[in-house]
Amino acid sequence: MKRIKYLCLLLMAISFPTFANNVTATAENIQEIRLSLDSVWVVMGGILVFFMQAGFALVESGSVRSKNTVNVLMKNYMDACLGGLVFWLLGFGLMFGVNASGWIGTSHFAPSVMDDWHWNLLFFQMMFAATATTIASGAMAERIHFVAYVVSAAVVSGLIYPIFGSWAWGSLFDGQGWLKALGFIDFAGSTVVHSIGGWVALAGIIVLGPRLGRFGRNGQSHHLAGHNLPLVALGGFILWFAWFGFNAASTVNASVSIGRIALNTHLAACSGAVAYMLYALIRGKAILLKTTINASLGGLVGITAGCATMSPLFAVITGLTAGLIVSVMPSFMEKLKLDDVVDAVTVHGFCGAWGTVAAGLFFEADLFNSHIISIQVLGVAAAFVWGFGIAFVVFKVLDKLLGGLRVSKQHEQRGLDYSEHAELSYPEFQRDVTFETDDLTKRH
Amino acid sequence: MKRIKYLCLLLMAISFPTFANNVTATAENIQEIRLSLDSVWVVMGGILVFFMQAGFALVESGSVRSKNTVNVLMKNYMDACLGGLVFWLLGFGLMFGVNASGWIGTSHFAPSVMDDWHWNLLFFQMMFAATATTIASGAMAERIHFVAYVVSAAVVSGLIYPIFGSWAWGSLFDGQGWLKALGFIDFAGSTVVHSIGGWVALAGIIVLGPRLGRFGRNGQSHHLAGHNLPLVALGGFILWFAWFGFNAASTVNASVSIGRIALNTHLAACSGAVAYMLYALIRGKAILLKTTINASLGGLVGITAGCATMSPLFAVITGLTAGLIVSVMPSFMEKLKLDDVVDAVTVHGFCGAWGTVAAGLFFEADLFNSHIISIQVLGVAAAFVWGFGIAFVVFKVLDKLLGGLRVSKQHEQRGLDYSEHAELSYPEFQRDVTFETDDLTKRH
Amino acid sequence: MKRIKYLCLLLMAISFPTFANNVTATAENIQEIRLSLDSVWVVMGGILVFFMQAGFALVESGSVRSKNTVNVLMKNYMDACLGGLVFWLLGFGLMFGVNASGWIGTSHFAPSVMDDWHWNLLFFQMMFAATATTIASGAMAERIHFVAYVVSAAVVSGLIYPIFGSWAWGSLFDGQGWLKALGFIDFAGSTVVHSIGGWVALAGIIVLGPRLGRFGRNGQSHHLAGHNLPLVALGGFILWFAWFGFNAASTVNASVSIGRIALNTHLAACSGAVAYMLYALIRGKAILLKTTINASLGGLVGITAGCATMSPLFAVITGLTAGLIVSVMPSFMEKLKLDDVVDAVTVHGFCGAWGTVAAGLFFEADLFNSHIISIQVLGVAAAFVWGFGIAFVVFKVLDKLLGGLRVSKQHEQRGLDYSEHAELSYPEFQRDVTFETDDLTKRH
Repeated sequence: MKRIKYLCLLLMAISFPTFANNVTATAENIQEIRLSLDSVWVVMGGILVFFMQAGFALVESGSVRSKNTVNVLMKNYMDACLGGLVFWLLGFGLMFGVNASGWIGTSHFAPSVMDDWHWNLLFFQMMFAATATTIASGAMAERIHFVAYVVSAAVVSGLIYPIFGSWAWGSLFDGQGWLKALGFIDFAGSTVVHSIGGWVALAGIIVLGPRLGRFGRNGQSHHLAGHNLPLVALGGFILWFAWFGFNAASTVNASVSIGRIALNTHLAACSGAVAYMLYALIRGKAILLKTTINASLGGLVGITAGCATMSPLFAVITGLTAGLIVSVMPSFMEKLKLDDVVDAVTVHGFCGAWGTVAAGLFFEADLFNSHIISIQVLGVAAAFVWGFGIAFVVFKVLDKLLGGLRVSKQHEQRGLDYSEHAELSYPEFQRDVTFETDDLTKRH
Repeated sequence: MKRIKYLCLLLMAISFPTFANNVTATAENIQEIRLSLDSVWVVMGGILVFFMQAGFALVESGSVRSKNTVNVLMKNYMDACLGGLVFWLLGFGLMFGVNASGWIGTSHFAPSVMDDWHWNLLFFQMMFAATATTIASGAMAERIHFVAYVVSAAVVSGLIYPIFGSWAWGSLFDGQGWLKALGFIDFAGSTVVHSIGGWVALAGIIVLGPRLGRFGRNGQSHHLAGHNLPLVALGGFILWFAWFGFNAASTVNASVSIGRIALNTHLAACSGAVAYMLYALIRGKAILLKTTINASLGGLVGITAGCATMSPLFAVITGLTAGLIVSVMPSFMEKLKLDDVVDAVTVHGFCGAWGTVAAGLFFEADLFNSHIISIQVLGVAAAFVWGFGIAFVVFKVLDKLLGGLRVSKQHEQRGLDYSEHAELSYPEFQRDVTFETDDLTKRH
Repeated sequence: MKRIKYLCLLLMAISFPTFANNVTATAENIQEIRLSLDSVWVVMGGILVFFMQAGFALVESGSVRSKNTVNVLMKNYMDACLGGLVFWLLGFGLMFGVNASGWIGTSHFAPSVMDDWHWNLLFFQMMFAATATTIASGAMAERIHFVAYVVSAAVVSGLIYPIFGSWAWGSLFDGQGWLKALGFIDFAGSTVVHSIGGWVALAGIIVLGPRLGRFGRNGQSHHLAGHNLPLVALGGFILWFAWFGFNAASTVNASVSIGRIALNTHLAACSGAVAYMLYALIRGKAILLKTTINASLGGLVGITAGCATMSPLFAVITGLTAGLIVSVMPSFMEKLKLDDVVDAVTVHGFCGAWGTVAAGLFFEADLFNSHIISIQVLGVAAAFVWGFGIAFVVFKVLDKLLGGLRVSKQHEQRGLDYSEHAELSYPEFQRDVTFETDDLTKRH
């Protein structure tokens, strides 16, 4: 009996250390798998968010006249390029660096050595910065100088967006933004990304003024039709597709909760478009493609703040409301003689503000809590004051430098593709535009 | 000696509980990681399947004349929107709810509270419903009333598709569909999604009749060329790209087997196009872009049922056969005076039926088993009877209501973009179409 | 006391086996989860790389005149189709099969039974083969016979690419390629995929000669403008989007390191475009859309070799240099009277060579190590000798067979869409091209 006992003890003693090692290794393995899985999810999310640039480029280029198409495409392409570089150099540090004051990050500029995991986050967040930036490009299309625009885009990616972002989402390292400390809910950026982009657009169109021919002498408005609606529709589909990465990967870790976030995102987009369709049918008006797409984008912008903390029924309500905002507000902007080529202020600014409030109203554990709602309203107001205010100053300054923000009347009439790029988007089909010899020499 | 023994025991006793806790935690962690990983895979799959809507929209809009392009795009866009809402409200419950009879699901309508994991599945399945729905839109293009179409799309997403789906794939909760109980193999939906969509399309084009000018007085047929083949090609690429999500994520869990599923999917698509190319070369005919793309799509539809249970060589054979079906059947349909604008009945209906039979013929553990094959044929027949039959009734009823299913002759000639949307897809390039004042008032 | 001891021992003895079983199960689970996770990442990577075909198709079809658009689209589509089949039949075995000599793989042709994991790798690698192949199609556009092209594409996918690949990346099973054995660094294929594709393109354009009208009698060159720049821009976005799969999934396992790889990829692309923009601004030239996109693609090609072994600052330098190469080299090619429709030789050949050298120069553990650099240069040279040499022979042989590599002057003038496909890309907008009766009979 005693021998058996000893034998048993001996076996256990022998097996125990190996066994413990296995288990230790296992725990490390689990840690590593978790990190790898989270990396896969966050990087796939970043890849999808990058693709939003293509969506914006198509929606915007299809919404302008063909004489300005190359120009709009170039603005979108350079947004992505400059946005990436500037956010790496400056924006990431301002937004996610050590934030002792709660008002600005102060470390991790142009990072070269970082914890492995943080490269994933930098990659993901970089794409958000480019998104915020590119929102304004469509609103200001067909009349802004290319170089002035490019400079303003760098300012948005490198300063305006990340500083506001540091308030709501900072920091990854030490300290906490003041809005975040108050409990501000903006899961994937209805306010941080979209409203900021929308208010920058608003400042831009005020400083630039409307396109030639957009408003008549007697105050009547003229519709300047976009030249290629299939591009607009494809852009809408691409944005919607990419938005799933934008929202569901904002968990920044892989978890079973991503399905409901994606579902809420989808239901809100569907609801936005359906709300507009019903609105148009009831009023006996034609159902316009561009407004349909904008209505679904409005739903997407609206659900972005609350997609992780709302039940599906409220996602539908959030989307329906956003769709109505998109149905109504563009006419209101038109009455104010504000010329927003793609209705970016409505879709991103107004729907973003609505979505941020909705995230408070429909916060699942605590519906209609006035404290939560008041923090949300504060965040919305702070975004407007900061985003519109600074952008207004930036555009005014750029208007004084670099020969003005707006191209000359002659160039605007002829089209920016000709005057700024010496290139036509469809040279075989735009037969009334011809190049002269001196234009061609600009090419090489 | 004894003291050492006691010491040893003491150490083990002390370490044991912590240790056991770690291991317990570990097992939970593993459970959670597995669930998170499966969620990532299923949600990514759903995101990809969503993107099929863009592919269909491009293939269809490029295949019609420019005067009907906005209309086709709008139909596709609203398919996605209504499909999402209606499937959440009604379809999911009918398809995957508790299914005591084996014929219909009866729970989980408009779900607001569910197990975390089930949101992932709802999101994924919702995209399949929209796919089944959108198949019919291209076939019926250029002549169907927008509002009537939209109603029919809601019926497909909310009733026709999910009820058949409940037979083959139900239930997620309790009970089993009768076809599933028989052992019917349709891994990702050659029959459940594609054939159902194809048979709905067939019913639609029979009720609608051919487009004006498609068939001459003496029975000869006229080719009405699609207006934009780059859109068709891009649509083909997008559908192919998205199909990897459709098929490989139908495992609904992440596993090492997804590579072979994706490979089979790819080989079948390649084989379909190559089969058509060889067919055209041998017969000395031009190799047409649209048929090439349809042939690869036919291969994709064909492999969808058996992609998880076939070795690659049989995937190639399945694809080659589908390519030949696409080479031959459209002429046959034309002889029957059936006007299918995008050959949706051939690509989705016929190739789906073939693929479902092929999944039985080439079932890897048990090739050419007559019992398996007979179940497959039964499933194919059931899909035809249900899909075609109900859709025929629905379209006939819609034809009596809402002022008819088909637009007036005058509107068809002028184009649906003008008469139904007051919008042109390329206003600068379609110079022979002009808007009159009263059309423009429909816009605002 | 003794009883307690026995009780304690008893409890441990009872709990121990169950406990050990749990842990064993756990270790297996971890293995399985790791494999599933790696499969998800590699398959998602392959799906993204497939989508590059769409990107190439758009960049190329937008860069040609509308009369050759269907032809270019068809070439790209068949690249994907034949590339897939031929790589499965032949290429995979040559590249990754057992490689005793270091010069060629000799097993795993047309595999039907393989280890589960290897299907994932086959799927992923198959997409790389198609990418290498499709690079040449754009360079040789607007003048090559469709059938001759298709045969050459099969040779690239099935022989030229995989044999070089076996030197640098083989084998998956047994043995090692000679370049790999020397320590050649080409993480995702700057040389293996892109330079090989670029040198094949160079051989093709030399054998074919320039397009009619590209160079005048007195040696001056004429710009033959691409017909649809929005397609080019969208193609650029899609390629960039897909490149994240190309580079980051070349880890072939999921790990936390993928974020930095994706980030380096992005920064290099951004830097390429910005380098060209600054170059054009400084020289006072127009900033062209197509060159901007090519410059970012050059950055992507350049970073492909070293993206996993470089710090972000060096990724920026690699991209800036690639952007300058794209700014300068096309004029040089033009002086040599080489007509490369999409500048594929510059973007893929030259930038691929530069990137491979850069991967040696900036290898992070060991910067500017002359031994590493000399191996890199050897690899670059080997790729040129093999890729250009064999392709030159292949194109020369094809030129003797099949009625010549190049279409007749008359067909080239009329456009390949008409003469080779009897199909127009935009039948409503290309009003000066009409079909005759005998052309139409070619269709059915």
